[in-house]
Amino acid sequence: MKERVIVFGGDGFCGWPTALHLSESGYEVIIVDNLSRRKIDIELDANSLTPIKSIYKRIETWKQLTGNEIHYYNIDISVHYRRLLEVIEKHKPKAVVHFAEQRSAPYSMKSPYLKRYTIDNNTNATHNICCAIVESQLDVHLIHLGTTGYYGYSSVGLTIPEGYLNVKVDVDGDEKYLEIAYPPNPGSIYHLTKCMDPLIFSYYNKNDLMKITDLHQGIVYGTQTEETRMHEDLINRFDYCGDYGTVLNRFLMQSQVNHPITVHGTGGQTRAFIHIQDTVRCVKMALQNPPKRGNKVKILNQTSECRNILELAKIIRDITGGEIRFYRNPRNEDPDNELKFDNTGFKSLGWDPIMLDQSLMTEIIEITNKYKHRCDMSKIICTSVWNDHIQVDKTGSGEPIK
Amino acid sequence: MKERVIVFGGDGFCGWPTALHLSESGYEVIIVDNLSRRKIDIELDANSLTPIKSIYKRIETWKQLTGNEIHYYNIDISVHYRRLLEVIEKHKPKAVVHFAEQRSAPYSMKSPYLKRYTIDNNTNATHNICCAIVESQLDVHLIHLGTTGYYGYSSVGLTIPEGYLNVKVDVDGDEKYLEIAYPPNPGSIYHLTKCMDPLIFSYYNKNDLMKITDLHQGIVYGTQTEETRMHEDLINRFDYCGDYGTVLNRFLMQSQVNHPITVHGTGGQTRAFIHIQDTVRCVKMALQNPPKRGNKVKILNQTSECRNILELAKIIRDITGGEIRFYRNPRNEDPDNELKFDNTGFKSLGWDPIMLDQSLMTEIIEITNKYKHRCDMSKIICTSVWNDHIQVDKTGSGEPIK
Repeated sequence: MKERVIVFGGDGFCGWPTALHLSESGYEVIIVDNLSRRKIDIELDANSLTPIKSIYKRIETWKQLTGNEIHYYNIDISVHYRRLLEVIEKHKPKAVVHFAEQRSAPYSMKSPYLKRYTIDNNTNATHNICCAIVESQLDVHLIHLGTTGYYGYSSVGLTIPEGYLNVKVDVDGDEKYLEIAYPPNPGSIYHLTKCMDPLIFSYYNKNDLMKITDLHQGIVYGTQTEETRMHEDLINRFDYCGDYGTVLNRFLMQSQVNHPITVHGTGGQTRAFIHIQDTVRCVKMALQNPPKRGNKVKILNQTSECRNILELAKIIRDITGGEIRFYRNPRNEDPDNELKFDNTGFKSLGWDPIMLDQSLMTEIIEITNKYKHRCDMSKIICTSVWNDHIQVDKTGSGEPIK
Repeated sequence: MKERVIVFGGDGFCGWPTALHLSESGYEVIIVDNLSRRKIDIELDANSLTPIKSIYKRIETWKQLTGNEIHYYNIDISVHYRRLLEVIEKHKPKAVVHFAEQRSAPYSMKSPYLKRYTIDNNTNATHNICCAIVESQLDVHLIHLGTTGYYGYSSVGLTIPEGYLNVKVDVDGDEKYLEIAYPPNPGSIYHLTKCMDPLIFSYYNKNDLMKITDLHQGIVYGTQTEETRMHEDLINRFDYCGDYGTVLNRFLMQSQVNHPITVHGTGGQTRAFIHIQDTVRCVKMALQNPPKRGNKVKILNQTSECRNILELAKIIRDITGGEIRFYRNPRNEDPDNELKFDNTGFKSLGWDPIMLDQSLMTEIIEITNKYKHRCDMSKIICTSVWNDHIQVDKTGSGEPIK
């Protein structure tokens, strides 16, 4: 009998290709998703650049192609706890993968309502999953998608470890060694929720011996994976709007629609990156290598490399011949930073990360070029602002400042 | 014109005497409370040992006695955000004091529903207050009641500092000094929420420069303060049930109703204590000494001394001639621990803490003796259990194990 895995948020940008990859790898996959990401697109009057099909059509085509059935439940797990519990009790999964959180930092800062929605949705979703696993009395491995943003971007020069930090503390003149959770340093309400989640995990791990893997993932780039490429009905979403689009994909897409490359602030920021194909591989590796019951929460940095934002913009400009423009940075963050991550956890499991090179960019350029007629140019500029202490162009007109 | 203070949770055990003390001290006090503590009493079929009057009668009598008006709003601030914001915008407070959280550890562990209620209620209440202060654009000082339980009870021999810990970290062979938030170590779902709150505070402090004081308070004992003693209509609540009663008050009350003194586990636990009179004094001192805008969150240990539980039980037995019984410990915690707190923050502001001595115990004995006819003996034993890994007497029959 196949091992079963529930993918919470399995209709999203990371969730859908993960669901397919696990299905292809021999797992029986159950997707639970309330389609909130698609509904937010309606709210923002935005859309995926790629023409994604409905979850029903996606699953139907997948079954026709491979014979593999994917179960689907539309449940808001942050609210409908009994239905969540029923799905866990019915399918008795070996593991669950938890992507079911509002995942845009700018969206989480757009209004008091959306700050509150993000806190409420993400915190309750995470806690409900933990609570339901305990109530089910099943020994389920919980794999959660966190973010490298947990650590913040001012690391005093440290190579950021995988979740835990060894420190020395003075105790009455004696130095004692302690291993502590790396101190979180969130940069938005969204990131705040991703810093609150690990407290929930560490509590359930301690009190209920829950097996948990928390993946601190960098910014994902690319669109397609081996499985989503199999048929156009399976195509993955591609976000380019100012709220949900992420930096590298946005730069490449902007170059194809003759929009200036939008660098916020100086571009001195350094961020961690990973290709979507590696996201799905890493999640499968995490699934195949659960922590032992009774061991502490396993934290892995799911990121292949760190890159400077302005450097990336220049590489893309040099390939595409586009133009770089500097916009005021709406975020409260350092204008520039160094960043190094330890990612030996996955590497020691045999991971050979995909590194960013021109051929990968070419692939993204091809897909964005193919669908550029679907682009709404008015959605490219980021209109969220982090607070009132920073003077920001709130009109969203996107006038460059430099 | 009087300075205005909103007391969220101002009808509760700490909130009510705080509201009166601030009113007596010349502040215009606005109480916001959804009466959840009284409603939980109905749910648990329990009651305050002391005959507390309704919030309306309390406020009316206070006005008759002192001429001071206290405003009251019944709002569930975890849900009704717009009403919360309206109250802040209308009264433009100098400060708000936030007691509005579900505050019992055993209650938070009673069922999946109550775990979820505690997470949802406490997290959203705290976040809504922060979000509303920012939306109001007022420069409001937020004072929050946290718990010494934030730090956990295995402190490697450290005198626990006031919120922040200095550590040394190895950076490529160089030792760097860092000041970090003391790593939280919650012992229940309730305590988990009190560890998530500080992340919310530190984020709003960083992003919005919010002025915040977080008070890590020990176990409160006693009932009456100078103000609640002024009239029987003002009497403070006294909880003795297995869910909301706290250790020292329970021991004293048990001795008066000829119930064995209920020591859970070995009694080797050491806990921090503070008298309710000092709670209200400390909150006022925090109010009068706000951090400067732009400074980090001010964390103060609001606790006067640490005591060993079995030692306390023996002192009370020796005064009252009662009997000590040992019950299985439903909590997941160390059987014994050392505990020392730094409380120089309040002391440097002139605090001369009330220390536990026989005369104070006599006062509590008098009040419990006066109202012992109101006691429901069946509510004394704690019936919550922390998890299924521990073998606990789940019948709640309270059979002693030793």
